[in-house]
Amino acid sequence: MLRITSAQINPTIGDIDGNIALMLDAARQARLDGSSLVVFPEMSLTAYYPGDMLDERPFQQRVEEGIRQLKLATREVPGIHWVVGAPLRRDGPGKAFYNALMVIKNGEVLLQYAKQLLPTYNVFDERRHFEPGPEHGVRTLRIEGARVAFMICEDGWNDEGADYLVNPFSQLAEVLPDLVVSINASPSNIGKREQRHQVFSKACARHKLPLLYVNQVGGHDQLVYDGASFAVDAGGRVVFEAQRFIQDVATLSFDPMSQTFQDAQGNRLAPVQPEGLSTMEFYRRQIVLGLQDYARRCGFSKAVVGSSGGIDSALTLALAVAALGAENVTAITMPSRFSSEGSVSDSARLCQNLGIELVEYPIRDIVTSYEEGFAPAFGSTLQGLALENLQARVRGTILMEFSNTFGHLLLTTGNKSEVSVGYCTLYGDTNGGLGLIGDLYKTEVFALARHINGLANSELIPVSIIEKPPSAELAPDQKDTDSLPPYEVLDEILKHLIEGDRLPSWEKERAEAFVANLQESDEGRALVRRVARMIARNEYKRRQAPPVLRVRPRAFGSGRQMPIAAVAAV
Amino acid sequence: MLRITSAQINPTIGDIDGNIALMLDAARQARLDGSSLVVFPEMSLTAYYPGDMLDERPFQQRVEEGIRQLKLATREVPGIHWVVGAPLRRDGPGKAFYNALMVIKNGEVLLQYAKQLLPTYNVFDERRHFEPGPEHGVRTLRIEGARVAFMICEDGWNDEGADYLVNPFSQLAEVLPDLVVSINASPSNIGKREQRHQVFSKACARHKLPLLYVNQVGGHDQLVYDGASFAVDAGGRVVFEAQRFIQDVATLSFDPMSQTFQDAQGNRLAPVQPEGLSTMEFYRRQIVLGLQDYARRCGFSKAVVGSSGGIDSALTLALAVAALGAENVTAITMPSRFSSEGSVSDSARLCQNLGIELVEYPIRDIVTSYEEGFAPAFGSTLQGLALENLQARVRGTILMEFSNTFGHLLLTTGNKSEVSVGYCTLYGDTNGGLGLIGDLYKTEVFALARHINGLANSELIPVSIIEKPPSAELAPDQKDTDSLPPYEVLDEILKHLIEGDRLPSWEKERAEAFVANLQESDEGRALVRRVARMIARNEYKRRQAPPVLRVRPRAFGSGRQMPIAAVAAV
Repeated sequence: MLRITSAQINPTIGDIDGNIALMLDAARQARLDGSSLVVFPEMSLTAYYPGDMLDERPFQQRVEEGIRQLKLATREVPGIHWVVGAPLRRDGPGKAFYNALMVIKNGEVLLQYAKQLLPTYNVFDERRHFEPGPEHGVRTLRIEGARVAFMICEDGWNDEGADYLVNPFSQLAEVLPDLVVSINASPSNIGKREQRHQVFSKACARHKLPLLYVNQVGGHDQLVYDGASFAVDAGGRVVFEAQRFIQDVATLSFDPMSQTFQDAQGNRLAPVQPEGLSTMEFYRRQIVLGLQDYARRCGFSKAVVGSSGGIDSALTLALAVAALGAENVTAITMPSRFSSEGSVSDSARLCQNLGIELVEYPIRDIVTSYEEGFAPAFGSTLQGLALENLQARVRGTILMEFSNTFGHLLLTTGNKSEVSVGYCTLYGDTNGGLGLIGDLYKTEVFALARHINGLANSELIPVSIIEKPPSAELAPDQKDTDSLPPYEVLDEILKHLIEGDRLPSWEKERAEAFVANLQESDEGRALVRRVARMIARNEYKRRQAPPVLRVRPRAFGSGRQMPIAAVAAV
Repeated sequence: MLRITSAQINPTIGDIDGNIALMLDAARQARLDGSSLVVFPEMSLTAYYPGDMLDERPFQQRVEEGIRQLKLATREVPGIHWVVGAPLRRDGPGKAFYNALMVIKNGEVLLQYAKQLLPTYNVFDERRHFEPGPEHGVRTLRIEGARVAFMICEDGWNDEGADYLVNPFSQLAEVLPDLVVSINASPSNIGKREQRHQVFSKACARHKLPLLYVNQVGGHDQLVYDGASFAVDAGGRVVFEAQRFIQDVATLSFDPMSQTFQDAQGNRLAPVQPEGLSTMEFYRRQIVLGLQDYARRCGFSKAVVGSSGGIDSALTLALAVAALGAENVTAITMPSRFSSEGSVSDSARLCQNLGIELVEYPIRDIVTSYEEGFAPAFGSTLQGLALENLQARVRGTILMEFSNTFGHLLLTTGNKSEVSVGYCTLYGDTNGGLGLIGDLYKTEVFALARHINGLANSELIPVSIIEKPPSAELAPDQKDTDSLPPYEVLDEILKHLIEGDRLPSWEKERAEAFVANLQESDEGRALVRRVARMIARNEYKRRQAPPVLRVRPRAFGSGRQMPIAAVAAV
């Protein structure tokens, strides 16, 4: 019987000492569990993804030194095979590193394998730093009577042969291992867990290979890794799943004879629940971890949010409270002459429900002082869009005064619908270090607010906030629908135009049908074109926006790299 | 005798109709010149680089349609071979496109070639969208008695075999062509022209192959392509060079028998001047074109700049005037209580010299209104860094009021030294659509200012501005050197840390020696570490900064992709 530990850890990019310490802790626990093999995620030494740090000499030296330290660390927990991920120096033409897996025991490297399939799509850019490993680089290692073979993340995603000419799964199958170990750094979005299960179940069943998949967990700028490490048996059934959104070091038993994962009593593990989290609960947990890790890694313990009395800031506040605790979140309400009465009273109720401090800072006088300065300087009156934007910028400036004075992380409150069409003020409400709901369409913002109330079993976010018609309140009686189509319509168009083929199937069918139906009329076609133009025209705003936590298949940021000064095809 | 036209055009990303029109014009001129062959840059159909537009179905359809239109266009100028660049659909595993070259004549595609070497470093990311072309895809075409072979940009950069396993130059040499035609989209930075000459001279001499290199010209967001198309003879001598920073359609004569480029009298062309522009003149012309094209393509004819009386804004204004004309540039001076007397009077003299409008807008009252609001809301006094930042944000807000009201493009004035170490206020002086001098170190800012005065043969930028000690003027008697080392020191450290091995050799030696010397003392080592930490810690500001025009080998933006929430190796 092979005891094997899935060490789903939360490493920090570049923190090589810290990451080795995490691995050492997990290896000690593995030893207590009687393990012979402890498996860490892809690039566990550096965390995924260090980007151009890999090009810098001081970092390269730290990596080499880190590998030496790591070997020493394995001697502190002797007798156990450590399966680690690290950038590995190589010679010859091409990039300076492989994205490598090493099996180390008692200070000795027993096996090295270099990732063959390097993803270069969506948020991935591995060809920038790595050379693909040689084909037929697959080797097995005999551990406690089991022949174990290894792969790294993307290696496992081409068993249908659609994306690369090379198929590492077939290569593995040829060496007839008893067990496959896959190390991963797979960022999470809706549908991703199910997609992983589907891809690996299918490949494992086809090749009759049991597999352990160990994933990174944690937040890194806009990407969140959910963990959710899992094991698949040779029949393609998922028989183990680690916890999601948290470090989880769990030990399994594997019987090489029957090639099955077993429980303590020697019974085969039963398939796990196929359903995962609901979409809204998934969003909530992903965003909470994303904020926690971003704040922690940037040295913030507190956050501040401008509270408009609207749904976006309310949801952002509720999520910030869930992540950082009520005592660490401050809301600032900044009413102007156009703010409805409800905007302050709704903010007050919201903050009372959340148990957070609310500061009121009316901006009328400051706006007036700008208006008074404008005419003498520029010879005309401040009005229209410029006046609307000014109010947002005064608020953004006050929030930064607070952040600069008291050291709070400012969170921006824009949602994906607004950010898509540029319904936001650059250097105003876009200000902030991180956007929590910038990858949620407005219709999803409402749904998540209701979900959070449902979880709390109380009106945490007042229904008056959820039910009022969305308004920027930057002009008299302004409503979002004055300049935008209703969000139920806009969001379907946006899903189709921005995420298209990357949408999960249930959303894709719906959005495609919706847009196809729209395009049967002249008005509908004009509307779709207008939205496409708005998306393209506002690329410059998104380029200057803070990172938004990614929760969907295609988020703004590195997953969508568009030129600014270009002619869009609409 | 083969007549061949180098059509160095300035296409717009995604503007397929417009780009075909540009090609048609150039082909007509080629015909008048008696050419048999007109050569356009890499990706001339779409312009380089459309990025993720290539992933979008409407754009993919426009490309296919564009190729059909292009074939029709060649019939309008019959008898001429058009060498064009375009994304070409492909089937099978992998990316959906090749980065292709097509030779089209009278509506018929005579040859297709797919780029084999796809760069994935610095600003390049071609593996994201393209599959490499098959090896041994090289074919020749007989045109007017000459056997002509073809390559695309990066294909020509691996003749030493350092970067890729494949060497398209050797492949070409095997098919024994009389002439090689290379189509390119090679962005420009200091030393790049000389590097191109060196690489292609060496390869052409080694393989005894004459070559025509045709480059794109024009600005695309932060990248500027200088054109500077050239011809190399079989001895490795550069015997023709097109104009730089401007469209240039020029026709050469090539004698297939002697394999030489010739003039109208049948004499071999003599080698061109090896020296190019001075570094400062290069910067000036690159920035001017970069701004012109960015403004034009984004629909701006006018620009506005905050004029502090300091060197950065003065240089930005002078460059904006050179690009857009004095009548299209507005300066706004916004003195605070900390502004020196000189700041307004220097601004006034500068604007008088440049012939541009200067608007004065004192910010004291607005700053006071923020201060008065701060204490009652937040229970403490606005002071220190928060007060310093506030002034920059009030100015940034006023500039955006002006931009929103009158439709001017706001230019940000930060230089590379400041942007590196975060000596700037986010949502304040970083505001703007484009940064003109954000890739120039502060010491270079001074040099370029002097150069511009030298060109004008007058004190266009007042010497009082050039000679005053740099100050942000956000606190009493503040000087940059209060918190930063002198720029002569800082800039060498920054060059070493940020650009390192990418520096041109003359700068690399100097920066390395300077830093090595510093590191001989404890204080020196501590200083280098401190600067490295400042660079790393301010990544979040750069992530939200507007594009800066790239002039150096490694600029902030896509050329340096760093995580924010990470531990730097310092």
